[in-house]
Amino acid sequence: MSSSDIFIGETIGTAVLILLGGGVCAAVTLKASKARNAGWLAIAFGWGFAVMTAVYISAPLSGAHLNPAVTLALAIKDGGWDNVPIYWAGQLLGAMIGATLVWVAYYGQFQAHLTDKEIVGEPTAKSVEAEEKGAGPVLGIFSTGPEVRNVVQNLATEIIGTVVLILAILTQGLNDKGNGLGTLGALITAFVVVSIGLSLGGPTGYAINPARDLGPRIVHALLPLPNKGGSDWSYAWIPVVGPLIGGAIAAGIYNLAFA
Amino acid sequence: MSSSDIFIGETIGTAVLILLGGGVCAAVTLKASKARNAGWLAIAFGWGFAVMTAVYISAPLSGAHLNPAVTLALAIKDGGWDNVPIYWAGQLLGAMIGATLVWVAYYGQFQAHLTDKEIVGEPTAKSVEAEEKGAGPVLGIFSTGPEVRNVVQNLATEIIGTVVLILAILTQGLNDKGNGLGTLGALITAFVVVSIGLSLGGPTGYAINPARDLGPRIVHALLPLPNKGGSDWSYAWIPVVGPLIGGAIAAGIYNLAFA
Amino acid sequence: MSSSDIFIGETIGTAVLILLGGGVCAAVTLKASKARNAGWLAIAFGWGFAVMTAVYISAPLSGAHLNPAVTLALAIKDGGWDNVPIYWAGQLLGAMIGATLVWVAYYGQFQAHLTDKEIVGEPTAKSVEAEEKGAGPVLGIFSTGPEVRNVVQNLATEIIGTVVLILAILTQGLNDKGNGLGTLGALITAFVVVSIGLSLGGPTGYAINPARDLGPRIVHALLPLPNKGGSDWSYAWIPVVGPLIGGAIAAGIYNLAFA
Amino acid sequence: MSSSDIFIGETIGTAVLILLGGGVCAAVTLKASKARNAGWLAIAFGWGFAVMTAVYISAPLSGAHLNPAVTLALAIKDGGWDNVPIYWAGQLLGAMIGATLVWVAYYGQFQAHLTDKEIVGEPTAKSVEAEEKGAGPVLGIFSTGPEVRNVVQNLATEIIGTVVLILAILTQGLNDKGNGLGTLGALITAFVVVSIGLSLGGPTGYAINPARDLGPRIVHALLPLPNKGGSDWSYAWIPVVGPLIGGAIAAGIYNLAFA
Repeated sequence: MSSSDIFIGETIGTAVLILLGGGVCAAVTLKASKARNAGWLAIAFGWGFAVMTAVYISAPLSGAHLNPAVTLALAIKDGGWDNVPIYWAGQLLGAMIGATLVWVAYYGQFQAHLTDKEIVGEPTAKSVEAEEKGAGPVLGIFSTGPEVRNVVQNLATEIIGTVVLILAILTQGLNDKGNGLGTLGALITAFVVVSIGLSLGGPTGYAINPARDLGPRIVHALLPLPNKGGSDWSYAWIPVVGPLIGGAIAAGIYNLAFA
Repeated sequence: MSSSDIFIGETIGTAVLILLGGGVCAAVTLKASKARNAGWLAIAFGWGFAVMTAVYISAPLSGAHLNPAVTLALAIKDGGWDNVPIYWAGQLLGAMIGATLVWVAYYGQFQAHLTDKEIVGEPTAKSVEAEEKGAGPVLGIFSTGPEVRNVVQNLATEIIGTVVLILAILTQGLNDKGNGLGTLGALITAFVVVSIGLSLGGPTGYAINPARDLGPRIVHALLPLPNKGGSDWSYAWIPVVGPLIGGAIAAGIYNLAFA
Repeated sequence: MSSSDIFIGETIGTAVLILLGGGVCAAVTLKASKARNAGWLAIAFGWGFAVMTAVYISAPLSGAHLNPAVTLALAIKDGGWDNVPIYWAGQLLGAMIGATLVWVAYYGQFQAHLTDKEIVGEPTAKSVEAEEKGAGPVLGIFSTGPEVRNVVQNLATEIIGTVVLILAILTQGLNDKGNGLGTLGALITAFVVVSIGLSLGGPTGYAINPARDLGPRIVHALLPLPNKGGSDWSYAWIPVVGPLIGGAIAAGIYNLAFA
Repeated sequence: MSSSDIFIGETIGTAVLILLGGGVCAAVTLKASKARNAGWLAIAFGWGFAVMTAVYISAPLSGAHLNPAVTLALAIKDGGWDNVPIYWAGQLLGAMIGATLVWVAYYGQFQAHLTDKEIVGEPTAKSVEAEEKGAGPVLGIFSTGPEVRNVVQNLATEIIGTVVLILAILTQGLNDKGNGLGTLGALITAFVVVSIGLSLGGPTGYAINPARDLGPRIVHALLPLPNKGGSDWSYAWIPVVGPLIGGAIAAGIYNLAFA
């Protein structure tokens, strides 16, 4: 794979991932959306199929990492670090493009929601502490946030979720015996992500991907949304550092037990 | 593939698509349906599996485009335009047959729903403007409509959704390395459609297919349904033009970045 | 396949099908079940995965018809009628065993539900006419029934649903090009059944299989359930005749358009 | 497979299984979880994808039994008993690690839930008898319990569910004809587990796996949870003995009808 294919593939793929992933959060959250209040199962399947679609589209170009923690884990496992900055740059840029496209697709819904006086004051899924720090009601469409704000637990939850994700990705090569895994891999990974969402998403909203959280948070800070509240920057390092630690631990487990 | 196989395959396939896709909307909407109020997740999975079933049945005959925007994108990508009118004609005819079969299968439910005085006056998911234009409460079983009526946004949302759909279809060939994709492809496409429904369906109801919207809208105008209201023809061009633009854009991205 | 393998395979397979399919209806309906009121999506996925599991288990023995309408359609398509009675006998016996196992697995729930005075009188999903004919509140765990009692529509809905099911099964051979369909087929068929449930199940509860409806209805008539009400025999012919007509039509379409 | 690979594979795999399976129960049950009250369908899919993820990760090391009843059935079928104790030890240890990780990931949620006076006294899904024996409201996150306490029925339900699970696992080899089953197997098994959850989970919560129930119950007894109530040891033998009987019966059916 050439550097430009990697960069373009990761940019397109992560844009699709965040467009669809952020999209389901917008669909379930915003006023005047047909899918409003569709529930957690819709969010978990929405993110899972977002991953599947994005992997499927970008795999021919870049191998579909779409997640800096996946790139880190593969670099540790395989020992090749040259392309890491290209992957990471494409992932962050793609995530920002994807979050912007969510805003375009849901423009009227954002306007209706954020100018509705009954809604703008209503309690959100964010913790009370986040509210006090100014995290507005639509931040959850862009970035994750904890229900109970506790650095140690929040970091642990993100690490645990990422270890599961990346162990499943790393063992893909061992399960593949020329038996159709290439395409099936995108589907299996989708359901692993649904699983993590259903099972480990309750406390922090399962970023398990630094680009997925940081890119949209930057876009949230930049977009001209009325009454949008703060971007909760004090929490922003956890969904970046936690998944990177998780990726490194998963690569370590793989090298010790599976290699 | 012969012209008659293409025409028959697209007609049967699109009829199955709309029978099952319109069917889930009827099932969730109408009085005296066991599935009433089953929610957005049911609609999204219903349309996804409708696509899977229709693709699976029609693929051996016509290659299963089932969507004029798919036919357009493949013509741009591959440069073959001769069969485009045959595909489009089969798709539109099939969509009209499918919408009629929904009416047959749910005949008693349509009657019970549309003659119930409490229901006929009740607010629907359509926007207030649509109500004023006479779009009746069951139009949503046939065709899509926006929650917030805004030409630019509505068009943009349909374009974005279609680009995602068709990029995933075009990259299928790149993912297929003789590893079972033929059959898996129908399943992957189904979940891509579920994904678009969950993530991008909130604002306009995700037509992402001109035949899917126009064919049933014509049938809605023709069927002898009591109290059916108008067919909202002022909106009808958006789910036709938007997906065609989206198909062309997706083919352009493919030719630039993937070919 | 030997006659005894066919009979044993169909008996075991249809028993698993009805155990799991009737089971999800019991789970969602009965008092003191953890899954009570889990909704129509749970029922649709429950029946779909019931089919998948039953097909998977019985395919090595009998080819997994599990449905007299499938056996009929394959006989019309392939011209072999000798084993039809063996298939049908195994299917009916299996369905009766499966329905009995549902009663065993949910024994305490049936007792709690049917001896609860508040429940036994409560309106069920059956139509009022069915109530008047004595169809008790738990009949829906065993057999299907219409929301609006209309012979022509009810028959048409069962025919339409069965045509879709069996067209998808018959085209399986055309989609299979040595690319892994053997196993995938069970999964595709499962999602076709989910699709029919979501989209065409609203009016009659989608029997689409004579054995699935008749076998459990006989068991309902025989079991010593308190306050069970009538078995609605006046409706019983529709979910037998409709699917058989649907199977014949699907085989005809296949022979005309696909063969 | 070496003994150490088996032990490590089963320990890691069962830890992932219980982390994700117990995780979805925590997500749906606990206060301050984003997924609270997501419903039975979320639980059924959560456990199914937990199995898929765990099988996928551990298959290359140990073949992914992850369930003492599976190990027993395969020993009966194949006649090899030497590794049974290694499998069982890894499974029990893994289940205990997984349950502990659920507590880590949901630490703040457990604390918020169990110190909320309104919640600690509220009725749970456990039967009234269980309440009287001191089973606290969060025991269901760790272990299963019956809605109606009836030794014969509870045992029968666990046996029936396990027979279905293990018949599907044993016939996997017959369905595999070099057509991609290796990877698909994990997916099929996942949906079999979803099926059992939806259809047979209502009465007892479908342990269908002795390690899945006993390991977390031990952890529940050991963890320093406030107001946790009793661990319901009087019921604990049923989800151990029932699945083992079910595994033996499934192996017997297999040897009689399929071998």
